[in-house]
Amino acid sequence: MSSRNKSAAPAGRLQRAPEGFVSGELIDDIVRHGLDDTRRGFLKRSFLAAGAALAAGSPVAAMAGQAAKSGAKGDPMILEPRPWSTVLGKPVAFHPYGVPSKYEANLQRRQSPGLTPTPQASVAFAPLQGFFGIITPNGLHFERHHQGWVDVDPEQHRFMINGMVKEAKVYTMDDLMRLPAVSKVHFIECGANTGMEWGNAAVPTVQYTHGMLSCCEFTGVPLKVLLDDCGADLKNGKFILAEGNDGSSLTRTISMGAALDDAMVAWGMNGEMLRPENGYPLRLVVPGVQGVSWVKWLRRIKVGDKPWNTMGETSTYVDLMPDGMLRQYTSIQECKSVITSPSGGQMLLSKGFFNVSGLAWSGRGKIKQVDVSFDGGRNWKTARLETPVLDKCLTRFNIDWVWDGSPSILQSRAIDSTGFVQPRYGQLTKVRGTRSTYHNNAIQSWNVAATGEVSNVHVD
Amino acid sequence: MSSRNKSAAPAGRLQRAPEGFVSGELIDDIVRHGLDDTRRGFLKRSFLAAGAALAAGSPVAAMAGQAAKSGAKGDPMILEPRPWSTVLGKPVAFHPYGVPSKYEANLQRRQSPGLTPTPQASVAFAPLQGFFGIITPNGLHFERHHQGWVDVDPEQHRFMINGMVKEAKVYTMDDLMRLPAVSKVHFIECGANTGMEWGNAAVPTVQYTHGMLSCCEFTGVPLKVLLDDCGADLKNGKFILAEGNDGSSLTRTISMGAALDDAMVAWGMNGEMLRPENGYPLRLVVPGVQGVSWVKWLRRIKVGDKPWNTMGETSTYVDLMPDGMLRQYTSIQECKSVITSPSGGQMLLSKGFFNVSGLAWSGRGKIKQVDVSFDGGRNWKTARLETPVLDKCLTRFNIDWVWDGSPSILQSRAIDSTGFVQPRYGQLTKVRGTRSTYHNNAIQSWNVAATGEVSNVHVD
Repeated sequence: MSSRNKSAAPAGRLQRAPEGFVSGELIDDIVRHGLDDTRRGFLKRSFLAAGAALAAGSPVAAMAGQAAKSGAKGDPMILEPRPWSTVLGKPVAFHPYGVPSKYEANLQRRQSPGLTPTPQASVAFAPLQGFFGIITPNGLHFERHHQGWVDVDPEQHRFMINGMVKEAKVYTMDDLMRLPAVSKVHFIECGANTGMEWGNAAVPTVQYTHGMLSCCEFTGVPLKVLLDDCGADLKNGKFILAEGNDGSSLTRTISMGAALDDAMVAWGMNGEMLRPENGYPLRLVVPGVQGVSWVKWLRRIKVGDKPWNTMGETSTYVDLMPDGMLRQYTSIQECKSVITSPSGGQMLLSKGFFNVSGLAWSGRGKIKQVDVSFDGGRNWKTARLETPVLDKCLTRFNIDWVWDGSPSILQSRAIDSTGFVQPRYGQLTKVRGTRSTYHNNAIQSWNVAATGEVSNVHVD
Repeated sequence: MSSRNKSAAPAGRLQRAPEGFVSGELIDDIVRHGLDDTRRGFLKRSFLAAGAALAAGSPVAAMAGQAAKSGAKGDPMILEPRPWSTVLGKPVAFHPYGVPSKYEANLQRRQSPGLTPTPQASVAFAPLQGFFGIITPNGLHFERHHQGWVDVDPEQHRFMINGMVKEAKVYTMDDLMRLPAVSKVHFIECGANTGMEWGNAAVPTVQYTHGMLSCCEFTGVPLKVLLDDCGADLKNGKFILAEGNDGSSLTRTISMGAALDDAMVAWGMNGEMLRPENGYPLRLVVPGVQGVSWVKWLRRIKVGDKPWNTMGETSTYVDLMPDGMLRQYTSIQECKSVITSPSGGQMLLSKGFFNVSGLAWSGRGKIKQVDVSFDGGRNWKTARLETPVLDKCLTRFNIDWVWDGSPSILQSRAIDSTGFVQPRYGQLTKVRGTRSTYHNNAIQSWNVAATGEVSNVHVD
C-alpha cells in the first residue's frame, strides 16, 4: 500500500516499527513494504530459490520465489466470499467530487512541527513516499505560504500588466481564458526543499527531506502573449516583477528571458482549476525556476529595466556562502533526484525482490540518465526511466533490486540533458558550505539496516 | 471560469441563459464564456477594431481589441484593496487532503436522470466542458458500475491467476507492489460513450455526449510479467478472462495479444492509489480497449483458449447492426474527437476572439492531426496539438477563432497515426445503422446561434 492508516494496520506490524527515531505520525509509513508474518515465513523459506534465480540474472525469476505458490488452492482468502462481493454497492455520483479510499487516510500533506513560528507562514510537505508516476494529485500538492492561503472570488479577481509597456491593461479571468491556451507538465520545487539537510538534520522521511516538490499539468496563456498584447518594451525591459494578491503581496523579480521563454499565466492544474492553496484562480508558472517565483493569486506583472530587490529577494531565497556573503537570484532548480521507495521511515520486512523507485528532475532541461547505488556510491546501475521524459518535469525511475538482508545504502544520481551530474554532499558543501538553507541538490542516502529499517543517513 | 456555482453567479448573467432548452442543472455551464454587462458594452464598442486586426491576420492583435484598455487606471477593481489581500489567510495543511475552491462547486460528475433504472448500475459523466489539458482530476473521473462501487480493504484483497498456467498463484497487494512497476498515461472510454447520439437524442452538453471519457497516469505491473511468473501457456492460451470482485463479478474476455502488449495490473492513478469507484485497490488497464474491459476490483485472471462469451459480452457491449445482427468483441475505441469549449449549453456573450479547445484520442495509436471547421464541415483548419502526444492517450487541441456574431457550426475531425479519419455521422450510420448503443465515434457538431447560444445539433 502506499501508506496505511494506523488504526487499520495489524498490530503485529506496528510493533515492528523502530519507534526510537520516528514520531507517532510517521510510524504508519513504515509498513509500506510489509508482508504479514505468515508470508514472511514463507518468503524466508523461499529465499534461497530467489537468490539462485538472481544469480541467473532474471529479476522475474528472482521474484518468482516470492509469489504465493499454489495460493489458488492454499489461500483461504480467495475461497471465501468477501463482504464487498455480496452486496449492492454505492451509487454513481455518491461523491459528485470524489475522495480517496478510507484506507488511504494516512497519506496526507503534513507540517513539520516546530519548523516555523506560525502555520500561515509555513510549509506542508507532500508525501512523496506514497506517490507513483510523475503526476502529483492536486489534493496532495505541497504548500508554502507567506501569509496563509485565501479563496479568491474569480469574478472579482483582476490581473494587471504595467510598467515599461505601451499600454497598461487589466484582465478579468474571462478575458484570460479566451486567449490562446497551452498545457504543459512541469515540476515545481521550493528553493528551500531539502534545506534541513544542509546542517545534516537527517529528518526521518522523504516527505520532509524532499516533499516541497510537486508536478502537474498546467494550463494557461503564455506570458509572452500578454506582454505582446500590452506592448512590453523588450529592448529596455530586462525584468518583470510578479506580485501576488494575498496578504503578503509577495513579489519576485524574474528575468525577461524566462518570461518570454516558457512562462505562463495559468489557471489550470491537472485538468481542473488551480486549488485555492496553489493560487486559485491565477498563478505564474516559471518552469525550472524555484517555486517562490511561481507567484500565487497573481494580480500584477510589472516590466522594468533592473531587478527590484524586494524583501523576499534579499532576506530570503538567497544562498549563504562559506565566506559569509549571500548569493542572490540563483533561481534555477538544478538537476536532482531522490529514491522515494524504499525511503526513510519505511521498513523492509523480508529479503528478496523490490522495485526501487524514485524521481529525478532538472530546471535546465530533461533527465538523461539516473544511476542507482545499493552500496553507498561504490557501484552504480542505470535505472529505467518511465516515459514520457519531459522538459523541466519530474521523471520517474525504477530499478530491480534483490535485497540479500545485509546492510545497504541506497542512492540515486541524476544526469540532465546539459550533462550536469547531481553532486555528492562532499562536492556540494566544498563550494557552498553547510550553513545555507536553499538550493540543496545533493545525492540523498537511505540506510537499510539488517533489520530492514530504512533511515536517513548523511554520506559525503 | 471552468464552471460557476449558480448561487454565486450574478443574476444578470443567468437571465441570459436560454432556459427553454436546458435543464436547471445545466444553466450554470452557460456562463462560462460570459463577460459582465459593463465589459460587454466595451467589447461591443471595440469590436470594429478587433475585426480590423483579424483581417491583418494576427490573432493576438485581434484579441487586443477585447482587452480592457487602460484598465490599470480605469478599473476600480484594481485600485480597491480586496478582502483577501488584507487578511491573515488559512494555515498550511488546513486540508491535509485538499479540495477545490468553493467557487468551483458546480463542476461535478453527474448522473443523467432517467438513463438507468438504478443508480448502482449506472453512469456518472465527467464534466469535460470544464477540463483543461489531458489529465482528468481523480475526483471527476467518470463512473460506470454494474452493481455499485465498494471500498475494498487492500489488506484483505487477493488477486489470482489460474487457468492454462503452469502454476496458479495468488498475490497480495504487497506482493504486486514489490514487482517491476511501469507508469503510463492512457485514456479510458466507455464503449457506450456518445451512445445517446445514435438515435439523435442531441443531449444538451458535452458532459452527457462524451463524458464517459477520462485520462490518467496509471501505475502498475505489466500483465505479461505476471503471466510469465505463472508460466502461462502462450501457445494454446489465446485469451484471458478478467474478473472483478464487486457484487456483479463482472467478467471480460481479452485477447492474449492485448494482454501481452501494454496491459497492466494497476494500483496507481494520477500519482496516488486508485479511487474506490475506479477499482481500488486493483484494476486492469487495457490501453485502447473500451472501459468495461478495464475490470475494477480485479480479483482474477484466467488463461484460456477461446472467448468465454459471458453475459456482459453477449447481451451488452455488442453492436446492433442494420440487418438486426449483433456484432461482438469490437472492443477497440476508434479515433475520435470533440470540441469541449465552447460546447452545448454554454453561451458566447460577445463576439471576438475565442480559444476553441477540445480532445482527440485513438485506441489504435497516437493522434496525428485534428482539423476544426466553423461552418459545419465546408472548410477545415488544422488545430495546434498540445504536447506530449502519447499513444492511446487524450491529446488536447486548441485553435484560434474570431466569432463575427453570425450563426456557426463547430466540428472537430481527428486523424490517428494509422491514417484513420474520424467519420461524419452519415458515413458511420451508412455502415452501422442508427439503432446501436456502442462505439459511436462520429464527428460532433455544436451549433452557435446569433444569440451566442451553443447547442447540440446533428449534422450528417
